[in-house]
Amino acid sequence: MADGGCTPLARALLQQCLHARLQVRPAEQDAAAQWVEIQRGLVIYVCFFKGADKELLPKMVNTLLNVKLSETENGKRVSVLDLPGSVLIIPQATLGGRIKGRNMQYHSNSGKEEGLELYSQFVSLCEKELAANSKCAEAGVVVEHGTYGNRQVLKMDTNGPYTHLIEF
Amino acid sequence: MADGGCTPLARALLQQCLHARLQVRPAEQDAAAQWVEIQRGLVIYVCFFKGADKELLPKMVNTLLNVKLSETENGKRVSVLDLPGSVLIIPQATLGGRIKGRNMQYHSNSGKEEGLELYSQFVSLCEKELAANSKCAEAGVVVEHGTYGNRQVLKMDTNGPYTHLIEF
Repeated sequence: MADGGCTPLARALLQQCLHARLQVRPAEQDAAAQWVEIQRGLVIYVCFFKGADKELLPKMVNTLLNVKLSETENGKRVSVLDLPGSVLIIPQATLGGRIKGRNMQYHSNSGKEEGLELYSQFVSLCEKELAANSKCAEAGVVVEHGTYGNRQVLKMDTNGPYTHLIEF
Repeated sequence: MADGGCTPLARALLQQCLHARLQVRPAEQDAAAQWVEIQRGLVIYVCFFKGADKELLPKMVNTLLNVKLSETENGKRVSVLDLPGSVLIIPQATLGGRIKGRNMQYHSNSGKEEGLELYSQFVSLCEKELAANSKCAEAGVVVEHGTYGNRQVLKMDTNGPYTHLIEF
């Protein structure tokens, strides 16, 4: 395995979607499950490692929202802000796993509390960026996000996920 | 960015699905699009880098089909072979991208011909493994795969994608 000495501070996985739907609260005895959904846009799975701190977040959000991975109707690649498209953020601690034998281990992941704090601030920075962008505001695109620590039940339609990994 | 000196020979991204559907041939004037689909199982996105050769494949297939990431009805994690579940293999060269400014570059990816050759052999090794496994044969689970070089139009339902990255 390509291992050792390469642990980043954060890992983001990006997929393009036409529609995505994420459970944010499982069904309980007296209540149906709750979901959020976005139409065309970007799904960001995010994982933080030990050593990550909030100084990292502005650069991370800036990079992810401005990288040109979203396809216009003419087939040109632009950023999700320029599309403009919606953003669905999914906390995905499993992305920090390393294989050992037949099992995955998560020793490099940030602790639960730091992870939650970083995730919450990451989401709120993304929301601010979209809100501050006039194209996005005009088009009514949204930022939705999963609940940290929950199972991320996801349903997704794509026109090609165009999966990219970006590490920080 | 965490960059430099860490390029693996191959990168696999694993997601668990309840159902996944992948276009293997786009619609043409006189013919509808063709799709393959699997029910419960494992989606493997795969990307090869320069320097990868077929010596890598048996270990890679062995690792991916035996790592315990599939959830039984009791919530226990077992391999996709032990579930037993189906496998959908998606060629995803974009996984090899590195960010430069606001664009992604793919300079480390294997060439088109080598990539196709490695991909075809990877698929055929997975097929052999599932066929040789009595539990899988009995349950009638299948290996399906995308067409190398095509746009990978994907629709997926999960009970939590439980996304993992494994590099070789």
